[in-house]
Amino acid sequence: MEEERVPKYFVLKKELIQKIEEEEFEPECPIPSERELMEQYQVSRITVRRAIDELVTSGYLYKVQGKGTYVKSDDYSQNLFAITSCTDDVIRLGRNPSKKVTVSEIVPADAKRARLLNTAVGDELFRLERITMADGEPLNYTITYLPRKLFPGIEKYDFSTQSLYDLLREQYGVRFAKSRRTIEAVLTEEEIAEYLDIDEQMPVILFGSTTYGVVQGKELPIESFKCYYRTDQYKFYIEQVK
Amino acid sequence: MEEERVPKYFVLKKELIQKIEEEEFEPECPIPSERELMEQYQVSRITVRRAIDELVTSGYLYKVQGKGTYVKSDDYSQNLFAITSCTDDVIRLGRNPSKKVTVSEIVPADAKRARLLNTAVGDELFRLERITMADGEPLNYTITYLPRKLFPGIEKYDFSTQSLYDLLREQYGVRFAKSRRTIEAVLTEEEIAEYLDIDEQMPVILFGSTTYGVVQGKELPIESFKCYYRTDQYKFYIEQVK
Repeated sequence: MEEERVPKYFVLKKELIQKIEEEEFEPECPIPSERELMEQYQVSRITVRRAIDELVTSGYLYKVQGKGTYVKSDDYSQNLFAITSCTDDVIRLGRNPSKKVTVSEIVPADAKRARLLNTAVGDELFRLERITMADGEPLNYTITYLPRKLFPGIEKYDFSTQSLYDLLREQYGVRFAKSRRTIEAVLTEEEIAEYLDIDEQMPVILFGSTTYGVVQGKELPIESFKCYYRTDQYKFYIEQVK
Repeated sequence: MEEERVPKYFVLKKELIQKIEEEEFEPECPIPSERELMEQYQVSRITVRRAIDELVTSGYLYKVQGKGTYVKSDDYSQNLFAITSCTDDVIRLGRNPSKKVTVSEIVPADAKRARLLNTAVGDELFRLERITMADGEPLNYTITYLPRKLFPGIEKYDFSTQSLYDLLREQYGVRFAKSRRTIEAVLTEEEIAEYLDIDEQMPVILFGSTTYGVVQGKELPIESFKCYYRTDQYKFYIEQVK
């Protein structure tokens, strides 16, 4: 038989993909338990886990801690984040947004940051690192740099509750001008995987951005950030009208 | 010594990241060869390879076949694709675009496709799978489904040279209305990794989309596609004006 030449987990994976495509396993619904799959397909737990793990990394399924494994919906349901915002989207999905600050410090600019932020190497930058969560579950990890000379005293705020952009607007009189975001798919460093509560083998989307704003009458780069975003449970979307 | 507790590849990785951030290794320039790194840091080839491989999957470096390993630029240089187009971007980068058709066939709609394309399960769909290349190097793999009843005879065209959208517009009188794209980071299936000429451990961006158009006087879903996009060498960008 032909199937004997391919590994069991691979055969199981193809069978599960078919059930997802046929919608026998319905979008946003849990799939059968490990035990049920072991019995139904007469395979070991290792085989079931490997098949499921690969379907998670390839975007067919997602896991919810303590609840089970679900079919990731491919249609345009509510489980989507617009590419520009985040906190508002968390609220829109009926979930509770929060932020946790892991780093808040003054650092000297390295060559790369100096170039992006138009400062000298060694100039003081405010570095802020935060986890954004929905109902306590990590969604993204953001590393932000701002030139301290533009925002004196910025290190004194508590950014677990204070919105950075509101502060820049209201306290420092910034008018946001433009930004350009880059997007790529990466695996994270161990430390960031831990903050995001994901396996290191789970790809994430990395946004890179420099934001320009008008401050003290001049348009300047005011912020450079990197944002590692989980897409295992939620997808992003872009709307286009032609 | 503290460093002895962490693996050598990890120490080397951190050193290389520092050289990238300090721009001692310049953006879009090759880093030293494996041999040079082995000598400079007094480590084995395995250690050098592991450090470099992890810097590739995490988006710091990229490899060009037969040429070497380069520093991926983080600024807004030319190595970027807009999120909407592709062939035009390849040309804009001064490279030569081409397409290779791997699948062109009529298939019955499964439940998922039937729902997305508003057809009955079992209705005939045209399935087209293509690799988009720049100077012969794979950039993305796209799997497209179109309802055959809207586009009779579509399977007779050669989509390695024929633009699908031009054909829909010019031959079938389609006026494109809107689309909504989802974006997520995934690892690919083995087969698709082969088409893209990447390691299975290299994350890619998966775009999912249903395109709506006006055809025969009605606005209908005309196309559903999945596109697996390499971002190891090129990034995407989104421009925003606030």
